Amino acid sequence: MINEKSFALGNTGSAIRELFEYGKKRKQIVGEDNVFDYSIGNPSIPSPSIVNESLIKIIKEVEPTKLHGYTSAVGDQSVREAIAKYVNETYKTEESANMIYLTCGAAASLTISLNAILNQGDEVITFAPFFPEYRVFVEKANGKLVTVESKKDDFQIDFNALEKAINKNTKAIIINSPNNPTGVVLKEKTIIDLSDFLRKKSKEFNNVIYLISDEPYRELVYDNNTVVPYVTKYYENTIVCYSFSKSISLPGERIGYILVGHNCMDKVMVYKAICGAGRALGFVCAPALFQYMIPYVLGHTSNLEVYKQNRDLLYNSLSKMGYDIIFPDGAFYLFVKALEEDAIKFAEVAKKYELLLVPSNSFGMNGYVRIAYCQDPKMIERSINAFKLLMDDYKK
Amino acid sequence: MINEKSFALGNTGSAIRELFEYGKKRKQIVGEDNVFDYSIGNPSIPSPSIVNESLIKIIKEVEPTKLHGYTSAVGDQSVREAIAKYVNETYKTEESANMIYLTCGAAASLTISLNAILNQGDEVITFAPFFPEYRVFVEKANGKLVTVESKKDDFQIDFNALEKAINKNTKAIIINSPNNPTGVVLKEKTIIDLSDFLRKKSKEFNNVIYLISDEPYRELVYDNNTVVPYVTKYYENTIVCYSFSKSISLPGERIGYILVGHNCMDKVMVYKAICGAGRALGFVCAPALFQYMIPYVLGHTSNLEVYKQNRDLLYNSLSKMGYDIIFPDGAFYLFVKALEEDAIKFAEVAKKYELLLVPSNSFGMNGYVRIAYCQDPKMIERSINAFKLLMDDYKK
Repeated sequence: MINEKSFALGNTGSAIRELFEYGKKRKQIVGEDNVFDYSIGNPSIPSPSIVNESLIKIIKEVEPTKLHGYTSAVGDQSVREAIAKYVNETYKTEESANMIYLTCGAAASLTISLNAILNQGDEVITFAPFFPEYRVFVEKANGKLVTVESKKDDFQIDFNALEKAINKNTKAIIINSPNNPTGVVLKEKTIIDLSDFLRKKSKEFNNVIYLISDEPYRELVYDNNTVVPYVTKYYENTIVCYSFSKSISLPGERIGYILVGHNCMDKVMVYKAICGAGRALGFVCAPALFQYMIPYVLGHTSNLEVYKQNRDLLYNSLSKMGYDIIFPDGAFYLFVKALEEDAIKFAEVAKKYELLLVPSNSFGMNGYVRIAYCQDPKMIERSINAFKLLMDDYKK
Repeated sequence: MINEKSFALGNTGSAIRELFEYGKKRKQIVGEDNVFDYSIGNPSIPSPSIVNESLIKIIKEVEPTKLHGYTSAVGDQSVREAIAKYVNETYKTEESANMIYLTCGAAASLTISLNAILNQGDEVITFAPFFPEYRVFVEKANGKLVTVESKKDDFQIDFNALEKAINKNTKAIIINSPNNPTGVVLKEKTIIDLSDFLRKKSKEFNNVIYLISDEPYRELVYDNNTVVPYVTKYYENTIVCYSFSKSISLPGERIGYILVGHNCMDKVMVYKAICGAGRALGFVCAPALFQYMIPYVLGHTSNLEVYKQNRDLLYNSLSKMGYDIIFPDGAFYLFVKALEEDAIKFAEVAKKYELLLVPSNSFGMNGYVRIAYCQDPKMIERSINAFKLLMDDYKK
């Protein structure tokens, strides 16, 4: 027999992707403009022009055997230095280039970090709702994912629930802010309280507890006064998993990094374990051309104004109709309370109005749907009436 | 504690890379031109011009959100079809685009394949000398690597030794032709005999035994009449792990594929397990830009004439001096018998003459050194006298 777990993972379609495929077929039947596909979080705004400009410049200017040659497994040194400088200037922190490891995107950042720190049976806590691949990644690294529901009123951390879930086997906590699927940003107070809590628990269990901060949406915030706290400044044993996929709209190119926080205990050991895990999983180096692009694009984002307008239009329209929504500060998701208890049934009813919404069960929680609003603004405008009809259906 | 195996892997420098670093320091002391660094298999010939031309064309012409967006996890469909067409026309076989899975290079192809098929305790056989990362990859996939020495006279498979090593726990055999570190191509007869042998053993043990063909050097052969057999045509349960790194000199960009052979038993199950393993290891998709480059570069290689000249100069000169070398048909390595029993000691003596040669112990076998001749031809010319002095040293 082949590996049954691998087979099962390859055989189980993701609910999100199935809905997306349904949408493609449905469009052929009722017309492209008449289906409102909110299923997939694929950036709809093109990369900023600096991306293609710098790629062409690098291809033309860098000597070919250097350009396309192996970089160091940890990434090109000058690129790592540029990232450290940018992070330090932007977030007023003190990170070191030597603690940065370039990766093939956020998924690789997570699998490498988890395989670096977990031993058989170690537990990893995350907060529901959460990105469903966390479970896949933790289990592949021989860990056990433990989930704690976020507070329903603001989707910040429920510390009472966390207190019940944490124990001496807890090796790491994964946070994701701005969050997929809620769009919620963890407040500075939440990060401070979490840091204090983890410090207390580390002492109680006489264990290091790592805080893995999964940050593909860091730059996707829509209000000038919203700051996503830089977690290494609050908690010492932090591992940042970053990706450029969403901020500059290149999810297909697979480029990101891991950063071991400047105050992490035994950080050199942790970093070496990251190198070893990356090697054993088959990541030789991050794609070289995209590494060399990084110094050009640091600080740039796609034109986020479109996402902001989408968010505002949807949030305001749906709220007015009576939908119950947490106001999202970032990412490109709205998390909307289903109009009946069972989110899967609700999403089925929504299909009658050609609205493709992802039931929150995919994210480890019942009772909500996720709306990925990284879509064409015209589709969003056309969809508003469908949300109205869906609400009316439940008022009947 | 963090994961000790990951730490150990990250903490143990590769012997090859250490020698390379020694060379860099040595050059600062005795001068760039006076060190003969044969340590690393990094292509020294630039990519064919079609690589950069097609990259720029794609960047300029493809709509940006498509260009940099997610592809399907298995890779873009049109790219997979182009590969299948090319393979079928070139090797007269019948492979399907639906059995091709694009990857971040050969290392990823191997780790994904191994994690797809291995269960705890399964054994994988490979033939020494072998690429040392095989052990790392097999062990990370919970398997056990079993090594069988190749025949010393021609470095083909020693079937008597294989007979002793194979058993009911053998799940896969890894072959690598042209081979790193010997440069030897497995002859068609060897592949036929291996196929018959594996068929017989599969029946005897009532087990499927997979043949994993690691092919980063497939196109690197230097005589017109040398054909590297396409393994799926000889043995049904074959998984091809291919990379574009060496053939078109872009090892830093990480692009390759897995191909499940057309006659593989339960091939759809195997393919789905590959999809699942790729997902769990954190490979979301192969870098999109480099996927789209593939249809342009199929059938192209870097200018291999330089490697051929290097091989011929080194092989002829060293043979004449009395060195014992297997004539290599491909890759860019010479495997030379050490002039004393202990290859590590021999490599140390070679350093006196500024010759940096990798002891074969790194490849699971004592008594030889590897010479990576993917170097500047001028360095090779300058080094010939050093080989002479090294030989004289042992004649004293």
